[in-house]
Amino acid sequence: MHTRTIITFIVSFIIISLSFLSLSANDQDLLGQARKIFGSLPEVMPAEKNPITPEKVKLGKILFYETRISIDGTVSCARCHPIGLYGADGLKKSIGNNCKINPRNAPTIFNAAAQIAAHWIGNRTGVEDQARQSVIGPAAFGMPSYEAVEKRLIQLGYTNLFKAAFHGVRNPVTVDNFAQALGCFERTLVTPAPFDAYIKGDTRALTEPQKRGLKTFIQIGCGSCHSGAYFGGQTYQKFGVSEPYWKYTKSAAIDAGRFEVTKQESDKYVFKIPVLRNIEKTPPYFHDGSVDDLARAVWIMGKTQTDAALTDSQVKELVSFLKSLTGVISEQVLIIPLLP
Amino acid sequence: MHTRTIITFIVSFIIISLSFLSLSANDQDLLGQARKIFGSLPEVMPAEKNPITPEKVKLGKILFYETRISIDGTVSCARCHPIGLYGADGLKKSIGNNCKINPRNAPTIFNAAAQIAAHWIGNRTGVEDQARQSVIGPAAFGMPSYEAVEKRLIQLGYTNLFKAAFHGVRNPVTVDNFAQALGCFERTLVTPAPFDAYIKGDTRALTEPQKRGLKTFIQIGCGSCHSGAYFGGQTYQKFGVSEPYWKYTKSAAIDAGRFEVTKQESDKYVFKIPVLRNIEKTPPYFHDGSVDDLARAVWIMGKTQTDAALTDSQVKELVSFLKSLTGVISEQVLIIPLLP
Repeated sequence: MHTRTIITFIVSFIIISLSFLSLSANDQDLLGQARKIFGSLPEVMPAEKNPITPEKVKLGKILFYETRISIDGTVSCARCHPIGLYGADGLKKSIGNNCKINPRNAPTIFNAAAQIAAHWIGNRTGVEDQARQSVIGPAAFGMPSYEAVEKRLIQLGYTNLFKAAFHGVRNPVTVDNFAQALGCFERTLVTPAPFDAYIKGDTRALTEPQKRGLKTFIQIGCGSCHSGAYFGGQTYQKFGVSEPYWKYTKSAAIDAGRFEVTKQESDKYVFKIPVLRNIEKTPPYFHDGSVDDLARAVWIMGKTQTDAALTDSQVKELVSFLKSLTGVISEQVLIIPLLP
Repeated sequence: MHTRTIITFIVSFIIISLSFLSLSANDQDLLGQARKIFGSLPEVMPAEKNPITPEKVKLGKILFYETRISIDGTVSCARCHPIGLYGADGLKKSIGNNCKINPRNAPTIFNAAAQIAAHWIGNRTGVEDQARQSVIGPAAFGMPSYEAVEKRLIQLGYTNLFKAAFHGVRNPVTVDNFAQALGCFERTLVTPAPFDAYIKGDTRALTEPQKRGLKTFIQIGCGSCHSGAYFGGQTYQKFGVSEPYWKYTKSAAIDAGRFEVTKQESDKYVFKIPVLRNIEKTPPYFHDGSVDDLARAVWIMGKTQTDAALTDSQVKELVSFLKSLTGVISEQVLIIPLLP
């Protein structure tokens, strides 16, 4: 009886040890693959043309909440990109001045500044350009001209804050500088997530289902577009490679996508690959917010982009993995500024 | 030939004169009836408990656009009541802090301050109470306490404006005074319309179809609830007297209405009679914004409240009449304030 117990114990020990070794080898393998495709978030997203300074970030954060530079006094950056909702508004399409509906779903502004362009169809060169054009966007701030915005900024008492952020400049209160300040603020909006700990080497930062999801994510080719530290934002791609996207999204209208910008036939239904950071927290999904449920969005992606009908367990694991991209918003960022 | 022409002329003259006389008698009769039921708008809506002063109105107007006293820095009074959209947001249900959906459609704040209560179910005693409770409303401004709002108002530099509006008061920056100031501003929001010229005696201020619509409005009993200078706001009534309202509105959910406040069985599906001033400009209609089209809303009212299936021409004339309640927003009110 005693000998038997000892033998059972030894055998169990050997089996468990072997399984740990093999798990560890699998883990190392997966991590190695992941490191070739993805990366961890930087502290901030720097920009050569718009160096980050504390003064610009401070000004940008205050301007982010300024509604009085919109035609009806109700639109600020924060209206469509509420910080507490991970920088997206949860609506199918955002609502701008005088409750006008915007053409597409508002993407998050977290982890967004390092993309090739801004907006779903890439019709803004970056976050600065997006901020600048928003103020005169008919369904956004709706102001009649840049001059009108600049006049209001001066009337609102922003001059000293602009002077501090752009010192040595004679007339610093310009929409260009407004855009630079907002861009700087946005470049600080990073949300480190469990995945970042994982990719740095802490393989326990992901659960087993999440690791299986990551493996599937790589194997079926999601990572070929949703790559890098941001899981997207670096390329354009047709939505609906194997079949039209609207067959599955039940979109109310067909959006020609980047065709609207380039007028090239090959750009029909082409959109910028969205960043997947915090995707769990930013429904509804796709350019028109046509899909509410992340699992459904994942299944549609599998179907339209890779012609794979994902199984329920694959979808579940992929969703589980995507949740490892949900990061933390710093306390500092969550504080509403009160000035000027 | 000459004599014939003269005779024709005289006969025509007599016929036209008689028809004018009879028209005029009809006009006088309708005007007399209308004067018994309706009235013209006052210059402002005074309040014994909250006397209107220029300082309070000025402060109220500035506060109306203040988003930084909301939990996410995006909600001001103007967000759900845009001035340029006649004080209503055009959404089925308003969207508050962190994009939370409000329980009911936002009523206009124009010509609204003289009602028996505020909100569709009368759960606010008036415009001041509505303003006060909004700041801590979970789907409105969402602030944790009145104290938190008062602290922010001081930090935002409102103290001097409050001192000017409430002079002699030791600590004037309170949510009660915030509510008084907003109430004063709202009491100035009147929109004189063609109907006001008509009711004062200018019978040409209404078109003939509008007069026919007014006649129908009185005859079928709309005026028994939608009475007074505001065409409503003075009583509560069951929505769906002859049949349940949701049979026709296709409402997504059944709202128990004032029952929620009183818990009395007789208050089930009872709502405050809404003010019809500017109704043309403030779709969608009813407490849940379930109906987009004014003609359809008019037909539903006929059906559910008077058990009458209105004909197309009756509906058309009623809509035509309701457009005579569309007033003018003063230039002064449309200006977005820039202080503090």
